[in-house]
Amino acid sequence: MVFGSVSPWEVTGPVDYDRLIEEFGTQRLDENLVKELESLAGESHYMLRRKIYYSHRDLDLVLKDFREGRGFFLYTGRGPSGPMHIGHMIPFHFTQWLQKRFKVNVYIQLTDDEKFLEEKRRLSLEETRRWSYENALDIIAVGFDPDRTFIFQDTEYIRNIYPAVLKVAKKVNLSTARAVFGFSLSTNIGLILFPAIQIVPTFFERKRCLIPAAIDQDPYWRVQRDIAESLGYKKAAAIHSKFIPPLTGFQGKMSSSAPESAIYLSDPPDVVRTKVMKYAFSGGQPTAELHRKLGGNPEIDVPFQWLYMFLEEDDSEVERIREEYRSGRMLTGELKEILIKKVNEYLEIHRQRREEAKELINTFKYDGKLAKEMWERVID
Amino acid sequence: MVFGSVSPWEVTGPVDYDRLIEEFGTQRLDENLVKELESLAGESHYMLRRKIYYSHRDLDLVLKDFREGRGFFLYTGRGPSGPMHIGHMIPFHFTQWLQKRFKVNVYIQLTDDEKFLEEKRRLSLEETRRWSYENALDIIAVGFDPDRTFIFQDTEYIRNIYPAVLKVAKKVNLSTARAVFGFSLSTNIGLILFPAIQIVPTFFERKRCLIPAAIDQDPYWRVQRDIAESLGYKKAAAIHSKFIPPLTGFQGKMSSSAPESAIYLSDPPDVVRTKVMKYAFSGGQPTAELHRKLGGNPEIDVPFQWLYMFLEEDDSEVERIREEYRSGRMLTGELKEILIKKVNEYLEIHRQRREEAKELINTFKYDGKLAKEMWERVID
Repeated sequence: MVFGSVSPWEVTGPVDYDRLIEEFGTQRLDENLVKELESLAGESHYMLRRKIYYSHRDLDLVLKDFREGRGFFLYTGRGPSGPMHIGHMIPFHFTQWLQKRFKVNVYIQLTDDEKFLEEKRRLSLEETRRWSYENALDIIAVGFDPDRTFIFQDTEYIRNIYPAVLKVAKKVNLSTARAVFGFSLSTNIGLILFPAIQIVPTFFERKRCLIPAAIDQDPYWRVQRDIAESLGYKKAAAIHSKFIPPLTGFQGKMSSSAPESAIYLSDPPDVVRTKVMKYAFSGGQPTAELHRKLGGNPEIDVPFQWLYMFLEEDDSEVERIREEYRSGRMLTGELKEILIKKVNEYLEIHRQRREEAKELINTFKYDGKLAKEMWERVID
Repeated sequence: MVFGSVSPWEVTGPVDYDRLIEEFGTQRLDENLVKELESLAGESHYMLRRKIYYSHRDLDLVLKDFREGRGFFLYTGRGPSGPMHIGHMIPFHFTQWLQKRFKVNVYIQLTDDEKFLEEKRRLSLEETRRWSYENALDIIAVGFDPDRTFIFQDTEYIRNIYPAVLKVAKKVNLSTARAVFGFSLSTNIGLILFPAIQIVPTFFERKRCLIPAAIDQDPYWRVQRDIAESLGYKKAAAIHSKFIPPLTGFQGKMSSSAPESAIYLSDPPDVVRTKVMKYAFSGGQPTAELHRKLGGNPEIDVPFQWLYMFLEEDDSEVERIREEYRSGRMLTGELKEILIKKVNEYLEIHRQRREEAKELINTFKYDGKLAKEMWERVID
């Protein structure tokens, strides 16, 4: 989700999350670790309780560092290739929660360089820069701490990170890059360097870096973990989420190239209604009669899954909806109405906060406490 | 010579300069073009008369642009991997002459990034930065116009060129980069991007760029010429020199990894004497008697060739020496004494100018007329 599509595989078919843990060699986020995280955070988080975040690397070490006073920092990012949709917001909300509970720094990379270099996107650098601005507003609207958050755009911040980019790049040869990222002879030489640029922010502090991101971004961190210690840094830790399913069906993740599969943050209420009513994949029965009799299947029902994964924080309410729907007492249309209401409430608040973000963007990018410090530094 | 060893082949054996023209598909620098260049310059240059510069691409178009008022600009560079030797100075002297005669801007790139990325060199970034400073002093000592010259170091200037680097990188795929520069699977991903960084300064102005450089750098400009027009710029023009032979023999070019093969700009007079006496490859006969009888061969005699190619500007003097030596009247020892005197005179003046350069380096890099303009620009 974060940083977009330079991942080794594209999410298209149904996702086998257990297989991903095995394939990537990550750890399952078990009950004990979740409990410890929540105990240190001082509160529980519904995305942890519901296993939306379900896999990790070295989260145990992050918590140990925190307990023992060494601290940690958070890093995430966004590939500014177009408007953001609801699915893009999950890691930002979860990152913001971690920041608030642990009072740690957050670094957010806007990869305007990468999204220009990806040829299939046909975006000019002017366009990826404009999307960097637009996306930054959406990200700021999530409520990050302006003193502890630095949002940086690659084409602007490159001089400060370039020495570290060179040091990382020198450690990664073409063979590794091809194996991990699937580059071919037709890949341009800019994209081939790019992994180094995405890895560098994991070295912004000597503390351990924790990355909340969808699991498809893991290959970057695998390369990071291979080279970090030889550069005098810690291996990056990660906490991996599942994908929020596209509106159109419980497969893969939402895609910006299929507008009907996503609700954009800029969609007005009537568009939200139309999209949900027209495209939302339902786990209900073909007729109301059959539905009353047989009940719906919330496990494949996208409106229910969106509520469960992101939009309905209240456990008892989400379980009530699940039971009503499964029993057939709640019809598909009623469930969709609940989703439409929740989405539009979310977007209404988002629109307000996004307006306020226009006043804050320079704080996050240039003159906030952390931002100012970062502009005075060269990452070496 | 310029930018060092990311060239597709290394100069080791005897150089067949005619073959290089054919292989690279460049043009021979013929009498008419030399005459036109000298006529526009308002004076002749011994390196042109003696065909030290012997090949070109589009020099005729550069002169046409100049005649018709469109102007041109000059670009050269240096890979700061260690101390500079006499052979490194040829393109800088020639470039300085062109600047003085045509009153044009000169851009000089110091590739501290590239020399760090080249693994065989085992240089830290701190070292390539220190060599950038040291080499810049040597380059400034040549006498460039501080108002019309910009010396820039990649790790410092990267933000200003990064958008253009991305645009170039997007046009060059791995297949081309491998074919032209010989990258392999063990090449690091930083070096793979590097050609884009060396190409970008050819786009510093909309005018035509003329690059005086040894012919082994031509592959970079071939890639530039393939993509320039699609980015709205002119194809780079080049004027190619032969290599000044190593002291130790008339083959290939001087190498920093064989210290006896080169005279460094920092060599004191007694070291110059020892190196010339001990290592200079001679075209003379085994004994003075034989030499008097059979004469020497100036064509393979390195002391003569150094005088001819670089150190003795006076045609009648150089021809007198050639004739004296060929006839056997001048012995090898006498010829070596002439060279030692010339080298030490050159280095004596160089040392003085290099001291003065310490006061000028900030002008060339940051606050001279052209430098200031360039720091305010982003190359897009």
